[in-house]
Order: sequence, then C-alpha cells, then structure tokens
Amino acid sequence: MRTGILLLVSGPSGSGKTTLCHRLSDEGEAHYSISCTTRPPRPGETDGKDYHFLSQDDFQNKINTSQLLEHAEVHGNHYGTLKTEVLQYLQNGTDVVMDIDVQGAEQVRSCSDPHIKNALVDLFVMPPSEDELLARLKGRGTDPDEVISLRMKNALDEMNHWREYSYRILSATREEDYLNFKSLILAERLRVSRLK
Amino acid sequence: MRTGILLLVSGPSGSGKTTLCHRLSDEGEAHYSISCTTRPPRPGETDGKDYHFLSQDDFQNKINTSQLLEHAEVHGNHYGTLKTEVLQYLQNGTDVVMDIDVQGAEQVRSCSDPHIKNALVDLFVMPPSEDELLARLKGRGTDPDEVISLRMKNALDEMNHWREYSYRILSATREEDYLNFKSLILAERLRVSRLK
Repeated sequence: MRTGILLLVSGPSGSGKTTLCHRLSDEGEAHYSISCTTRPPRPGETDGKDYHFLSQDDFQNKINTSQLLEHAEVHGNHYGTLKTEVLQYLQNGTDVVMDIDVQGAEQVRSCSDPHIKNALVDLFVMPPSEDELLARLKGRGTDPDEVISLRMKNALDEMNHWREYSYRILSATREEDYLNFKSLILAERLRVSRLK
Repeated sequence: MRTGILLLVSGPSGSGKTTLCHRLSDEGEAHYSISCTTRPPRPGETDGKDYHFLSQDDFQNKINTSQLLEHAEVHGNHYGTLKTEVLQYLQNGTDVVMDIDVQGAEQVRSCSDPHIKNALVDLFVMPPSEDELLARLKGRGTDPDEVISLRMKNALDEMNHWREYSYRILSATREEDYLNFKSLILAERLRVSRLK
C-alpha cells in the first residue's frame, strides 16, 4: 500500500499539458483534480464534474478557513482547489493530477501540510520551440494578430518559470510526450517515502 | 543537453536486479559500470570489459588517493569502482547503472562530489515474497541445505535496508519489473537539476 502522488503540471497554452493530463485521467491512472469556482456554470457543465460551483460567500469562507490548496482570481471570477478533496484521494492511494499555472503551483509548493509535501511532484511542459509555439497558438488562424501576440507574450512569461519545477518535458510528438509523462507517474509510484 | 544519471541498484540475490541492469545496458540505455578488482582474471574474462584487473599495490594506491567511489574486500579480494570513469560518463550525458550491495551503495551516497550527488538515484529490488525468494535461491536444487540457508539469511539481512533507498521495485513478472525500471530512467532524464 502507498499514498497517492499529487502531480502538478504547468506549461504555457500550446505546450500540450492539458491533453497529457486528460489522457492520464481517461486511462484511469489518476484523478483529474476538479476546481471550485464562483463563475456561473456554462451550458452543459455539471456541478462536481466540470467544477464545484460555489457562491462568492462560500468561496470567501473557504479562503478564510484555509480550506483551499491554491486559489486565484481571473477576470473577476475565483478559482481554487479544495484541500480536503485532494487529501482524500491521496490517503486512498489514488494519484491526483492538477493542470495548474505557475502561480498556483507556487501556492501548492508552499503548503505546509506534510501529506501534501510528501505527495508533491511538479512538472513543466515546454513547447518544442518558439516557432512551433507560435504556430500552435495561431490555431486555425481566425484570431486577430493582437490576440496572438498577447498569447505569445503570456506563454513566454510562463516559460521563464520552468526551473522552479523538478521535472521538465520538452514537447516532441504526442506519443513521446505521453510515454515520458506516464513514466514519471510509474517511477514516482516506486518512491519509498510513499510506501506504507 | 543533460548530465547522466548514476543509478544504484541493490537487492538480494534472487531479486532479479542483475538481469534488470544487464538488460538496460544491452538495450543501450545505460553504461554498466565495470568494477576494478585484485582478483585474477578467470578464463574468458577480459580486462576492461568484465573487470579492470589491478595489482594489490595499484588498488591500495587508488584507495589512498581517494580514486574509488566505493570498495570492499570479499574472500580476500578487493573490488571497487573508479570515480573518474563514472564521472566521465556522467559528464558526457551517459547514464551509468551500478549493480551494488547495500554497503557499497552507502559509500556512494556518502560521496561529497557534487557531480555524483546530483547524478545519484538509488533503487532497491525486492523479491515478491519469502517463499518465492527461497524457491529462487534453491535454484536447480543441487546445493546442500546449509548453503541455501546461508543464502536465505544473507538475502533477508540485505532486505532490511530497503528503506535507505529512494525507490523500490517489488518484483512481479520480468516484464513488469523491467517496465518499472525503464520508467525510472525515463523519468529521471526529465529532472531539471541535470539539464544544462
């Protein structure tokens, strides 16, 4: 028996990190961490599946009572991760994967809970090159240049933080990236400090 | 570019650790570390391939000038690992695998060289159960009971040390063991602290 891994995955949009996290979860290898948010549900979104939808008061209460592992405000909406939910999975030996930005990862790293500290593994996914990143961010080519430029600037800013992580994947092909990603989970499952 | 991994692999005889190390090396994934020894070559053994064969004086000189990463005396013969040889591979980005006992691993861990410290990954391979271990140690069943008993005692003594390692493989099938072993190398290749 072992406790679970808490795998933090960061990287700019265009790095392919979200695809990696979803595939790991779809293959039943890890639980994809569900955020809570004060943003209203969009059509088709289900409470407890896509997000835990909370009122402003509920969310503020969770901040005040230190129930969130990390939280942030984006465009006036709050997003965060419930510490108890993550801990429950980890205690049961289920690995948890979190698709998270560099600020969020920094908050999780600074958590003093020994169960979180012992579970933590952090990975940064880098796009193969700036040219390829730009190509990926242009997507279908329907967005105005200013939007693309802003996305590129944000991606490059995010990429400055890769040395804060323990592991890095330099994106190659989809299959190579996933092989490396899966290897990281398999290797971390062998870690003595998580064996009971 | 990255520096190499120094993978220490310990475990009792019967754990399958040597098979894992050889396969990794045969597949070109790592250099199998060659020991030096004062034991005379056996028929068919080649200097620089099976061992570096040294005189007693040469060996003692290497101990005195701290050129050995670890060394031990077994049945009156000396065995050890040349630090410069290992460092050369690591600097070139070649991973090195060492099949080593718990005392040897302890010596390598206590090495103060920062290149060794940064390269080091240690793994203990455990047999699946005591029954299975006994079965494996009995081998073809031609050895006397006292020999088997001594082997079993030595194996159980060695197994008391598994918590000193960062990773542990609990042996299952040959293929599962190798998948885990290979994952460990693939994951460690992603480690940021070894990227240049």
